[in-house]
Amino acid sequence: MSTSDQDEEKKAARFGEIASEMHSFYRGKMETLPKCSVRSMDDFSVWYSPGVAAPCLEIVQNPDLVYDYTSKWNTIAVISDGSRVLGLGDIGPKAGLPVMEGKAMLYKYLGGVDAVAIMLNTKDPDEIIHTVLTLQPSFGGINLEDLSQPKCFRILETLRNEAEIPVWHDDQQGTATVTLAGLLSSLKVVGKNIEDLSIAFIGVGAANVACARLIFARGAKPENCRMVDSKGILGDFRKDIRLRRMEFPEKWQLCQSTNTEGRQGGIAEALRGTDVVISLSQPGPGRIQPEWVRSMADQPIVFACANPTPEIWPWEAKEAGAAIVATGRSDFPNQVNNSLCFPGIFRGALDVRARTITDSMCFAAADALVLFMGDQLGPEHLLPTMEDWEVFVKIAVAVGLEAQKAGVARLTRTEEELEKSARDIIIRSRNLTQTMMANGSIKEPPCTI
Amino acid sequence: MSTSDQDEEKKAARFGEIASEMHSFYRGKMETLPKCSVRSMDDFSVWYSPGVAAPCLEIVQNPDLVYDYTSKWNTIAVISDGSRVLGLGDIGPKAGLPVMEGKAMLYKYLGGVDAVAIMLNTKDPDEIIHTVLTLQPSFGGINLEDLSQPKCFRILETLRNEAEIPVWHDDQQGTATVTLAGLLSSLKVVGKNIEDLSIAFIGVGAANVACARLIFARGAKPENCRMVDSKGILGDFRKDIRLRRMEFPEKWQLCQSTNTEGRQGGIAEALRGTDVVISLSQPGPGRIQPEWVRSMADQPIVFACANPTPEIWPWEAKEAGAAIVATGRSDFPNQVNNSLCFPGIFRGALDVRARTITDSMCFAAADALVLFMGDQLGPEHLLPTMEDWEVFVKIAVAVGLEAQKAGVARLTRTEEELEKSARDIIIRSRNLTQTMMANGSIKEPPCTI
Repeated sequence: MSTSDQDEEKKAARFGEIASEMHSFYRGKMETLPKCSVRSMDDFSVWYSPGVAAPCLEIVQNPDLVYDYTSKWNTIAVISDGSRVLGLGDIGPKAGLPVMEGKAMLYKYLGGVDAVAIMLNTKDPDEIIHTVLTLQPSFGGINLEDLSQPKCFRILETLRNEAEIPVWHDDQQGTATVTLAGLLSSLKVVGKNIEDLSIAFIGVGAANVACARLIFARGAKPENCRMVDSKGILGDFRKDIRLRRMEFPEKWQLCQSTNTEGRQGGIAEALRGTDVVISLSQPGPGRIQPEWVRSMADQPIVFACANPTPEIWPWEAKEAGAAIVATGRSDFPNQVNNSLCFPGIFRGALDVRARTITDSMCFAAADALVLFMGDQLGPEHLLPTMEDWEVFVKIAVAVGLEAQKAGVARLTRTEEELEKSARDIIIRSRNLTQTMMANGSIKEPPCTI
Repeated sequence: MSTSDQDEEKKAARFGEIASEMHSFYRGKMETLPKCSVRSMDDFSVWYSPGVAAPCLEIVQNPDLVYDYTSKWNTIAVISDGSRVLGLGDIGPKAGLPVMEGKAMLYKYLGGVDAVAIMLNTKDPDEIIHTVLTLQPSFGGINLEDLSQPKCFRILETLRNEAEIPVWHDDQQGTATVTLAGLLSSLKVVGKNIEDLSIAFIGVGAANVACARLIFARGAKPENCRMVDSKGILGDFRKDIRLRRMEFPEKWQLCQSTNTEGRQGGIAEALRGTDVVISLSQPGPGRIQPEWVRSMADQPIVFACANPTPEIWPWEAKEAGAAIVATGRSDFPNQVNNSLCFPGIFRGALDVRARTITDSMCFAAADALVLFMGDQLGPEHLLPTMEDWEVFVKIAVAVGLEAQKAGVARLTRTEEELEKSARDIIIRSRNLTQTMMANGSIKEPPCTI
């Protein structure tokens, strides 16, 4: 570990040290505010009784006007039961609230999307589905977050079919989209095609199942890929999964579609001769050994994305011959970070009033991320960072255009219109927070980093 | 009608004329915003992963810390199914959203309370109860709004018993509290005691049932009072209500407790010889006749609070001898307006983390409203107006102190502490909107009033 790595380690530890003090200083992270005029109390007679009756009655006649007369068009709910929060496990709805408020904050600051954190006091999948459906009228979309698996698959699938607004599970779709983007950038760097790849997916949780699905949908051949869970490589020989296939249908399906050669073993065996490893498993280091990387195909691509520590240190992977290494951390090159995706994807979906978010819209977002890199693209520059605020605009435009092509958009918008509206709303959102900090509406924080 | 009355009529009509244009100009009324620092992207590593894990883990150990580390302490949900919106009836959850957003705006601007409008896609009382209980973890309180009766009674009662946060139905409790305040002021003006009153309640909807309950709890004797619904005066002779007493238990209870003399008839008979009429029935004018007011006791007190037009015009009631006339309208003296109550009551309840809102807290709020009038109190000055922003501070203090006396407060706060915190948060909230208007974050409205 170099001196600068040690500095980064100290900085990372510092985030946790000051987090509680910072959270209690501001007593939470999000507030609600009027976004319309209050010239005098007379304005309340427009915004509330008696004037408000006029837009209400128009909505009765034409329900779609709720998108014009209320904030529904730009407001989503970030919903969780706290059953699988970050790396913390089932900490429950109260303890999960700081995370969902943080997510709501990222939505607003990065994507200009109004977001409300809603924690559910139930863990029952049917109740979660029913509650989300009941909450639809106020919201333009739903971001599901930190739901345990396997229930999260059925919850998402059911809600995507039954809801009239887009429902997104960021741990599945967001992770898959940004991972796909990182993979596509990597392939450009090493000059390989997705159709020819052999990929080893390490970890078969919600995130990696979704990654595999989206990467297969984009053209990778499942039969040439292998997935590894805590008991070894998946295949139709896995009796333990076959026995529980009603409970884990997604996993059993992957047993049948991947690893057609029937290779058995663990991570070591899965990596042998493979082009890419995408690991979303348990924190490392040491979970992926350098010699296993040495056994991979030419120009190995290593995504070691466990948090807070990657399954193998980037420098170890490089020494073992990795052409490209990506992790989940901001203090190493190539951070594979959901926050690059969801603000722009929802911005675009809301701006064309999409009914759902299709795989093709995820592809459009991933391609926009790759395209954004332009000449910057390189083995240590696969993806933009959160500082690159214009990437959120580009993703929104790409997603809004693709939604129209895919036939799921309720509105028609040109590229120029989408670009302008996304840009204006994102700039306003960022400026507002900076203005509030400058004028003291947001106080000076009590801690430096 | 005088020229100035006609001007006021024109102004009232104007609110409705411009409301749709104003609503679509701003595309809704409320937004969400970060209330904490974003110095650089590093701050997101405190507000979100990895730093956020620290406050999450502390909440696991001590669930009450959710009030320190998140916005729960100051955030309420304004929840409705749209089944009885304003005077518009059952217009459903989408059409009701502009009203609930307006309510959320009043909460924030007047009381500094963060409020989120949540419309439910169900009208079933058990589902409404279940959904509200499921949503508790994110919120410090619940404001129920515009629920039809009779279900609203059971919903409120059940939730007050089962929820761990305060649940308030403004159409019941808010209306009752401000009506009680107006009544107490009236009694000071005419020199009568509440214990000696005979009161006629016209209309037996949720609002007037709640008014009667709270006024009886404060000391008026139900046996000397009469309630009138669309079929006449209530009494134990009302076979139609007796037959449906399982469906309307509150109404049947009032049949038994009021009007012990067994007087029969309609509004005319109910008013004869009575000290006070509190009417929350159908819009007038003409529903209460001047000669009926003439038949009342000495120094009649007339609350004609139907919206948008009172059951009798104020000038008609005055000519017929009314000592005091109050209505629901801002363009006549003595507006009986819920908005005077709920922002301060929830401010006070949240500031001591009250488990519920008791009748005694409603009394404290009503007394604070009366006290606020001081020397200004008079037949045309029963109550403050929404312009009197300090009244919200006074109510918050009174409610916070009473919650502690009543044993429902989770925190101990002195009068000075409550005063300072309510004042600071309300001033910040009002200033923020004015600042956003001044710096263009809220655009100049397209219409004058």
